[in-house]
Amino acid sequence: MHFAEPLRLQSGASLRDYTLAYETYGTLNAERSNAVLICHALNASHHVAGVYADQARSEGWWDNMVGPGKSVDTNRWFVIGVNNLGSCFGSTGPMHRHPDTGEVYGADFPVVTVEDWVDAQARLLDRLGIDTLAAVMGGSLGGMQALSWTLRYPLRVRHAVVVASAPNLNAENIAFNEVARRAIVTDPDFHGGHFYRHGVVPKRGLRIARMIGHITYLSDDVMNEKFGRSLREAVGQASADPYRYTTQDIEFQIESYLRYQGDKFSEYFDANTYLLITRALDYFDPARHHGGDLSAALAGTQARFLLVSFSTDWRFSPARSREIVSALLRNRREVTYAEIDAPHGHDAFLLDDPRYLNLVRSYFENIDTPEAA
Amino acid sequence: MHFAEPLRLQSGASLRDYTLAYETYGTLNAERSNAVLICHALNASHHVAGVYADQARSEGWWDNMVGPGKSVDTNRWFVIGVNNLGSCFGSTGPMHRHPDTGEVYGADFPVVTVEDWVDAQARLLDRLGIDTLAAVMGGSLGGMQALSWTLRYPLRVRHAVVVASAPNLNAENIAFNEVARRAIVTDPDFHGGHFYRHGVVPKRGLRIARMIGHITYLSDDVMNEKFGRSLREAVGQASADPYRYTTQDIEFQIESYLRYQGDKFSEYFDANTYLLITRALDYFDPARHHGGDLSAALAGTQARFLLVSFSTDWRFSPARSREIVSALLRNRREVTYAEIDAPHGHDAFLLDDPRYLNLVRSYFENIDTPEAA
Repeated sequence: MHFAEPLRLQSGASLRDYTLAYETYGTLNAERSNAVLICHALNASHHVAGVYADQARSEGWWDNMVGPGKSVDTNRWFVIGVNNLGSCFGSTGPMHRHPDTGEVYGADFPVVTVEDWVDAQARLLDRLGIDTLAAVMGGSLGGMQALSWTLRYPLRVRHAVVVASAPNLNAENIAFNEVARRAIVTDPDFHGGHFYRHGVVPKRGLRIARMIGHITYLSDDVMNEKFGRSLREAVGQASADPYRYTTQDIEFQIESYLRYQGDKFSEYFDANTYLLITRALDYFDPARHHGGDLSAALAGTQARFLLVSFSTDWRFSPARSREIVSALLRNRREVTYAEIDAPHGHDAFLLDDPRYLNLVRSYFENIDTPEAA
Repeated sequence: MHFAEPLRLQSGASLRDYTLAYETYGTLNAERSNAVLICHALNASHHVAGVYADQARSEGWWDNMVGPGKSVDTNRWFVIGVNNLGSCFGSTGPMHRHPDTGEVYGADFPVVTVEDWVDAQARLLDRLGIDTLAAVMGGSLGGMQALSWTLRYPLRVRHAVVVASAPNLNAENIAFNEVARRAIVTDPDFHGGHFYRHGVVPKRGLRIARMIGHITYLSDDVMNEKFGRSLREAVGQASADPYRYTTQDIEFQIESYLRYQGDKFSEYFDANTYLLITRALDYFDPARHHGGDLSAALAGTQARFLLVSFSTDWRFSPARSREIVSALLRNRREVTYAEIDAPHGHDAFLLDDPRYLNLVRSYFENIDTPEAA
């Protein structure tokens, strides 16, 4: 969907002539009361679920959650997946051309925030003729968008489903983001963000960024169970002393896994997008305009909430979700909260845990679709 | 101390014509029974304590622990600090010349292990005429060396003090090491480890490595308390909306802290040393020759032990120290174990916590110095 009118951003800058890539699943009912907006996290897009014509299996990032008969049942709900501004998966981003200059934005793409994304999503809904969402839903950074929706458009959201999220990043989260950004920015192929002009990609930095990310997505437990101190097969079987005594060869399986993830990521993800999205994460902090008081910040919400966290998620720990729950309860909002005992760390929000998927299913089964939207 | 005779390494390679830098504090008694060896961790050296002639204050890394009247009282103990092989602080390392070729070792410096360091330290003690140590002591990687001493030279160690350490690295530890190594190795200034020839230093990689390290040394709690989401003063005071909406400027204090630490480190630390030391950490695993059975691995120890861990240390968590304690107890060894409730994470082992310093003091007060060594 193309938008010609300028979008005023939190930074004071504006974006005009931008496009939002989106997908929908299911059918909007006559009352326009069954729309569910799904917001994505760092490495994802509008392609939430389903299979494209030429594909054997879905590459949708929440295909286990969204679809006919699934927790978010597209036989009942009209689900919208939208790619955020600044992304590299279809919506206008740093790889596109500035409408005035005709130059690729690169590092000049304006810094966008969670609030900016929500505003852009609201315009998309306007165009789609949807006044009120039955629900807005997201995990991690997507959960921040869902929370932000209830603040910026309190009357347009009936339910918010906030999974594995937080009311803001803590110092450690920001620290990991900063290391990843430094790795990208100090890669000589970054060229101040204008690497497109040079026909190169700062792959070294992207690899490091992704490796760091992966460590924080997994729990210590699942890493130990999945990889432990195991050596790569070819190495491990060799002799009584299987170590190769090198500093650069891949010897441990965890090294192999991380390098593979880093390599893959560096092939498709845009470096400027990485900077933008991590900064949006850093900046999100609805309490900051209320002297750090989250209860005061959430006083204007009208929605009902489902919050879900995962016991071994150390990136967005259950304690951070409980902060949101407490702040909502202090405002006498209706909140359902579940802490799923799952070993997978932050990644759990994308995985098949029956308790988690059934919980979301039950919640959605209890959302009504009023006759008049 | 120079050593001409070759040291056979775990890898099968040998090192000859090497030098070990060391310092001593206090006086060796007539019975030679009051020697305490202190082993260092990643970013430290033989300079454990005390003040050099031209210094106003000590730069010794354990000066709060070691000195006249301190926990390890140098009025009573003859303390030895030794710099490990492969380091960049005085002992033979990658920046030195290979005795055969006259070329700087660089990436050709042989991979050294905790066991190799212990063997080299034992030779130093031979030269100093010290047969038996009253105690060997270290924190983190230094604790691994102390533990290794009790295995390789069980009759030469009466007490081992193992602080904030582990019986091996887990997958997450190895993962962080690997990311740091990749950042260094993929820095174009690394030149396959032979950057000295090119007159450059892979500072970008070293900075990233150090930033990652610092995140893992601190606890989540102490990071939140020390930095939280605070903005740099100059930025934070500016306006109602203090964000600058940039992806590369330093805005949060935690960013400023990490960049400063990274910059400082990259000025003095050798990249090849970083690779070597992190690999020595990865490889250490005394149980691996016993099918992973740590009790079996520690069966040969004769020393008495003090183990100390810190509640918020997520790099070398208390659980890892308890594994060592359990394995020793199963072998009916005499073990004192303390878990210090400290907020500082892994860094706590270097800090002034009265309970910790007093504990070590008491332990050392109860070590006797036999008449006959």
